[in-house]
Amino acid sequence: MVEVNPSEKIRIKDIAEQAGVSVGTVDRVLHGRPNVSKKARIKVEGVLKQIDYQPNMYASALASNKKYCFHCILPEHDQDAYWSQVEDGLKDAITKYNDFHLTLYITYYNQFRSESFAKASQKVLQEKPDGIIIVPQDHNVTETFCAKLIKQDIPFIFLDSNIPEIKALTFYGQDPLKSGRFAARILMLASQYCKDIVLIKFMKNNRIASKQQEFREIGFRHYIQEHLPDCQIKELIIQLDGNRSYNEQLERFFIDNPHIRNGITFSSLAYIPAEYLLRKNRRDFSLVGYDMIERNVECLQKGSISFLIAQHPWRQGYDCVKTMFNHVVLKQETPRDHYMPIELLSAENYIYYSK
Amino acid sequence: MVEVNPSEKIRIKDIAEQAGVSVGTVDRVLHGRPNVSKKARIKVEGVLKQIDYQPNMYASALASNKKYCFHCILPEHDQDAYWSQVEDGLKDAITKYNDFHLTLYITYYNQFRSESFAKASQKVLQEKPDGIIIVPQDHNVTETFCAKLIKQDIPFIFLDSNIPEIKALTFYGQDPLKSGRFAARILMLASQYCKDIVLIKFMKNNRIASKQQEFREIGFRHYIQEHLPDCQIKELIIQLDGNRSYNEQLERFFIDNPHIRNGITFSSLAYIPAEYLLRKNRRDFSLVGYDMIERNVECLQKGSISFLIAQHPWRQGYDCVKTMFNHVVLKQETPRDHYMPIELLSAENYIYYSK
Repeated sequence: MVEVNPSEKIRIKDIAEQAGVSVGTVDRVLHGRPNVSKKARIKVEGVLKQIDYQPNMYASALASNKKYCFHCILPEHDQDAYWSQVEDGLKDAITKYNDFHLTLYITYYNQFRSESFAKASQKVLQEKPDGIIIVPQDHNVTETFCAKLIKQDIPFIFLDSNIPEIKALTFYGQDPLKSGRFAARILMLASQYCKDIVLIKFMKNNRIASKQQEFREIGFRHYIQEHLPDCQIKELIIQLDGNRSYNEQLERFFIDNPHIRNGITFSSLAYIPAEYLLRKNRRDFSLVGYDMIERNVECLQKGSISFLIAQHPWRQGYDCVKTMFNHVVLKQETPRDHYMPIELLSAENYIYYSK
Repeated sequence: MVEVNPSEKIRIKDIAEQAGVSVGTVDRVLHGRPNVSKKARIKVEGVLKQIDYQPNMYASALASNKKYCFHCILPEHDQDAYWSQVEDGLKDAITKYNDFHLTLYITYYNQFRSESFAKASQKVLQEKPDGIIIVPQDHNVTETFCAKLIKQDIPFIFLDSNIPEIKALTFYGQDPLKSGRFAARILMLASQYCKDIVLIKFMKNNRIASKQQEFREIGFRHYIQEHLPDCQIKELIIQLDGNRSYNEQLERFFIDNPHIRNGITFSSLAYIPAEYLLRKNRRDFSLVGYDMIERNVECLQKGSISFLIAQHPWRQGYDCVKTMFNHVVLKQETPRDHYMPIELLSAENYIYYSK
């Protein structure tokens, strides 16, 4: 029988005895409360140092009764979108740490407009937050904001996309290059090494929603070039704000390219082509997409999406708050950069995906 | 800006005021400590009920100073095996909850001998544990033990394999039937729908190490029968305690079956055939296996394993202790049965697998 019992904590009573002060005095020193004479404080701190005292940070934080305001800057989104899962994670973590007097404020911005991020970040800065969780936008606008945070010593964490040149406390999200390479391998298998594929891109204001999607494409194209150099990658750009309906845009493409039977999208909107395929009853098309949102999962069940790659949005949100809590409230060290797993889901295993 | 702030806790001072007693009395009632008059207790409990008081369970548990003994019954294993990752998870959780005076005792048994489990469980029972985490063995020997636990009101959790007829507090592990189906789909793709495959089984004392492996095979065979009914599944049984070396056993098979180029094993010992393939420099063979242990990962990197299916052994261990802690110490309700995700790892994504 093996016993696992991390070193027993020394009791406050023992510290008081060694320092020759009362238990109350030790308690006040430990929790940083006033009404301790300088002499008593020096004695207690001497004993703490001597025994290498590891404080019970939960008890300290509970005793201090301090209130903390965390902020998050998040893209605007519908209720059933990818970002709502991130938001659920943020909220669940705040609820979990309920005992520690945390409040979280979420401010939204338009992903397709830089000035919207700038405005949101300006607003948040005025609130003097204890910590900020940021879904970065363009490099410049994010850098401008973060420079102010660094100056004011406000810790910040990047969620979803990373900008390695800006030194955030940490990052939670997927490695988009590796993710794109993995997607390429899966599409190659699912398509039986087919040499005609379509890459479906969703755009608004002439831009892709996120840097993550752009980098996934780079990883994807590298892998295909290395392993299937003859492969023709045709692009289908679906305008989210165009005059033509999605249906029209898809119809045009599929009429013009009847030989293409394999496709991929790096956005969470795979259900848009997948639902079109279902309506047309096209069973000969193999589609790989991203993210476990409800409409995607329906298409996975019905077979119009072959595989989804998932990236734990709930956990990204949850872990950002947890890490901020550990850093700000419990004063724990934070390991840098948490890359999310790159997970493959099919009709056979998706029900056990853990958010 | 959206504010997330779970309802503010009512203060003990307010409860004391409403009940007309001292703060110390409220504190004693909340933490179940003695020296409270019946009259005061009734008053305080009345107020608590009226305001639907949700106790701060962390503070209560910290204040109670009670010690808890958890036990675990685990298969014997080498340092680099699958089970050592489960054990790390158990230990890390105990360390995490260090402030709450938990000790964990681990007792080992031989997976290939029922009487070994019976002996281990008998020993553990004598220790009067506050909770037990069990990797079940044969149905009968596990049932006999669990009947005693139920009688003595000792909570127990199943880890790795489930026996649904025995009502454990909860279960942490993979759904083996679904896992086998998923493995079949992946092998079908990786082999390009090849109709000659080998199923490699590892045995000792004429038995497979676990029920999980047996059920994975059932799920696998069902899927193949549905989707590729012409497929010939040849079995290669490797005797872990036989007279012939693994190398000899593998050599014999591959000489006799030169046309077979695709294989699967449901054990974590995929590295045994994979290292053989590397030594023979056979690059035309596609192997699917289970579990992210070091020697498997090396073969994944070198290409002699195409895919590994992972099942989060560390998390299984960690979550079992966490759930037992929540149940025994924090008195929280436990949702039943936690099926682990069925995760696919290849050379492209394995580095971001989160234990």
